Amino acid sequence: MVASTQAAGDPFTDPVYKGAVVDLLGAIGYGEISAFERLTDDAAMAPSLEDKLALLALANRQFAKVEPVRARLAELTEDPFAAMEPFHEAIDSFHSFTAPGDWWEALVKAYVGDGIVGDFYREISAFLDEETRALITSTLSDEGETDFAIARIRAGIAADHKLGGRLALWGRRLMGEALTQTQHVAASRDALTEILAGNATFGGLDLAGIGEMFTRVTTRHIERMATLGLEH
Amino acid sequence: MVASTQAAGDPFTDPVYKGAVVDLLGAIGYGEISAFERLTDDAAMAPSLEDKLALLALANRQFAKVEPVRARLAELTEDPFAAMEPFHEAIDSFHSFTAPGDWWEALVKAYVGDGIVGDFYREISAFLDEETRALITSTLSDEGETDFAIARIRAGIAADHKLGGRLALWGRRLMGEALTQTQHVAASRDALTEILAGNATFGGLDLAGIGEMFTRVTTRHIERMATLGLEH
Repeated sequence: MVASTQAAGDPFTDPVYKGAVVDLLGAIGYGEISAFERLTDDAAMAPSLEDKLALLALANRQFAKVEPVRARLAELTEDPFAAMEPFHEAIDSFHSFTAPGDWWEALVKAYVGDGIVGDFYREISAFLDEETRALITSTLSDEGETDFAIARIRAGIAADHKLGGRLALWGRRLMGEALTQTQHVAASRDALTEILAGNATFGGLDLAGIGEMFTRVTTRHIERMATLGLEH
Repeated sequence: MVASTQAAGDPFTDPVYKGAVVDLLGAIGYGEISAFERLTDDAAMAPSLEDKLALLALANRQFAKVEPVRARLAELTEDPFAAMEPFHEAIDSFHSFTAPGDWWEALVKAYVGDGIVGDFYREISAFLDEETRALITSTLSDEGETDFAIARIRAGIAADHKLGGRLALWGRRLMGEALTQTQHVAASRDALTEILAGNATFGGLDLAGIGEMFTRVTTRHIERMATLGLEH
């Protein structure tokens, strides 16, 4: 762990802090681009043009959140796309291991997968400066944005009980892959883990705190699964 | 030709006129959704994340134009998606016959293909009521929206002269397929062709007028190819 000598004030004068924010925004930016691409791919499985349009509209609202992240990265670093590069592998792997096999899995991924990722970012942003936290919060899905997915899935499960069992397993897999890839990223990006451990500017988490964070993320995942009428 | 008895006033009391507008908006709406899907597919061929993002951003600006068309269709007809259905085949065929083989062909299609389609809609909208014309105009690409594509293609041709020859042929194919599919639609949708031939509310085109229209669309295609530095 690097002991930061940075006192209160502009946290970006601390290169470790700045590096961590660049990393986090790089991951979020690439994650958004990537999620957009997958959602538009998955939309091809929609059973009707109306359903397809609903998923594409969700993808588009998410895409609109890429530009503020890219612009902020361009302020903080020379090449915003280079800042995204270290996260290609983990994010691409997440998507290739969770490629939906049908429309139902695509809908669950759109709601549950996006929710897990958003929860992690929300947790991490609590350790950051106000400007960065506001930017990250603005990239998270708005209330109600995935309502159509929830309604469709609930109706699907009501009509076919077996579907519920299959999608419950699918939700567990999404969570498992998200944890696996988060761990890969954490293991390889020191600045990011420094932030969680705290520096002189912002307080950090001890081991118990990290455990509590994972408990909160898991609890919210279980709540989302229950919203869908699925066991976790 | 159906002789319309509709005098000046609200043109939508004429069922032929209304049917033609529903057809046209159905074609435009499905065309926009479809173009969006193809652009996001084609973006996978981008040589860099920055290039990919530029094409996805273009796709997204176009997608934003779907909703006003869908909303207007919902006012005019019971099911906006049913209004799009008669155009699935022609538009899907256009895209499957013009699936780009690489990033260069994708860029040319984004600029040239979209331009041809827009020119046709602009020509037809001249025969329509002001509200419909304004809606259609708002769906056309904005000035400068495809500047990045033009710049990339010009640079690519400057670096590799052979590319110019190949893309010139590609542009010709895009135009040929657009004409073929337009003809298919015109042959099967009577209300639309009625509009071009004129009714009591709006004047129409005689055979010479239709010829002039095609000349204008072709001229603008040649101008776009010249903008790219390509022979038509």
